[in-house]
Amino acid sequence: MNAPDRKLNILVSNDDGIDAPGIYALVQELRKIGTVTVVAPDKQQSAVGHAITMNYPLRVRQYQKNGKFFGYAVEGTPADAVKLAVRALLQGKPDIIVSGINHGSNTAISIIYSGTVSAATEGTILGIPSLAISLTTYGKADFTYAARFARKLTRVVASHGLPKGTLLNVNVPPLKPQDIKGVLVTRQGKSTWDDTFDARRDPANKEYYWLTGALQEADNSSRDADQWAVTNRYVSITPIQYDLTDYSMMDEMKRWNVERLK
Amino acid sequence: MNAPDRKLNILVSNDDGIDAPGIYALVQELRKIGTVTVVAPDKQQSAVGHAITMNYPLRVRQYQKNGKFFGYAVEGTPADAVKLAVRALLQGKPDIIVSGINHGSNTAISIIYSGTVSAATEGTILGIPSLAISLTTYGKADFTYAARFARKLTRVVASHGLPKGTLLNVNVPPLKPQDIKGVLVTRQGKSTWDDTFDARRDPANKEYYWLTGALQEADNSSRDADQWAVTNRYVSITPIQYDLTDYSMMDEMKRWNVERLK
Repeated sequence: MNAPDRKLNILVSNDDGIDAPGIYALVQELRKIGTVTVVAPDKQQSAVGHAITMNYPLRVRQYQKNGKFFGYAVEGTPADAVKLAVRALLQGKPDIIVSGINHGSNTAISIIYSGTVSAATEGTILGIPSLAISLTTYGKADFTYAARFARKLTRVVASHGLPKGTLLNVNVPPLKPQDIKGVLVTRQGKSTWDDTFDARRDPANKEYYWLTGALQEADNSSRDADQWAVTNRYVSITPIQYDLTDYSMMDEMKRWNVERLK
Repeated sequence: MNAPDRKLNILVSNDDGIDAPGIYALVQELRKIGTVTVVAPDKQQSAVGHAITMNYPLRVRQYQKNGKFFGYAVEGTPADAVKLAVRALLQGKPDIIVSGINHGSNTAISIIYSGTVSAATEGTILGIPSLAISLTTYGKADFTYAARFARKLTRVVASHGLPKGTLLNVNVPPLKPQDIKGVLVTRQGKSTWDDTFDARRDPANKEYYWLTGALQEADNSSRDADQWAVTNRYVSITPIQYDLTDYSMMDEMKRWNVERLK
């Protein structure tokens, strides 16, 4: 809990890269409520999942925007950027970490591929309340409303705190404020990708594959699913965590008599 | 459920790369119970998390071992390899996917960084019973016992099946069979890494960082934790899933009155 007059120390990262418009819009809003430090990948890192760099050195450079210092660009993944920020670059732990604003949706199964979510997950692992924000469009993006929403939610999270091990994954539809119907607390939905691989030949006639596909919406009548919420013009907030244990299956497996496999 | 006399179709992948000794040992054992197809990254992909390649083409080549065709080497991540195998390379879905044998532990928090687990997770997303196997040593590795255990467990999983969305994460201590105390069904433990970054200077005097650190064991008296099991000479089998929703926090957040943030 922060005293109301104390300025928040906010760490911002993303997966679209430090030069993406989404992180810029986010930083502009968050500066209204705190001291913002930006530590983000130097280039696009979408769909990197929770990758970290162990076999290569990480380099960092100062990144300028409009002639002024904007933040630290890390030659690595979103999880690298947050880990390096907290463990090596910053003086002291930030009060809160905000990752985004991602250009594209991070609902349902996409959560496990998402670099945006991964930056916030890494923050949570390091014991810092963290949130991930995505704008659910792959087309032309106006981050104004999403950035404002992120600012308001950041204040709420800073005041309520989050349980150890829990982060918030937020998806905002690409609409004008008056067209947003409301805000829903949701679960990770069941929608999945119908991946297909386009088999092509390069100029040397060697085959290669290109991943393509579309999100297959599930939960079509389920108001509590993240994808349902954004499709129906609500902002979606999903509390997530990273204990992946399937506890009910643990009980089931006790009947398998695994000891005999020894 | 498979008829006992039908040969299993088994897809094998890993994250250490198709030329790693762990995948070779695994394939030798699994060939005793089924028809094995290997589709694996062409090089080391540890700690890539659930990364997939979207912005680059994927290339595949046939990989020979000891003068014979061994499998398909994919220029991509473990999740790429499994996705490409199931969606483009194989005729029909495999009955089961086995990822490994990883050279190194994948317990506790490491699960979310693990490429080995990610290959099995991708299999599960594609609706195929999947397991990930790791040998819990970073030193000299003898995969004999772990490969034999993998074979026995593969048969059990093929016969029992797994619930939709559930996979098994298996960690085997690097011991002789007679020194293994037994087999435990476990939960993902709470152990974490105390990451530190070693700040160095390159020959041009430019600074870089290298990630280092050790696993800090938690759950020291908790028999049901994965890390406890392997430290205490048990094989650990953890059923995991990828619905990350923190359901208890959903209830808590209903008291936050998030609607006012709109």
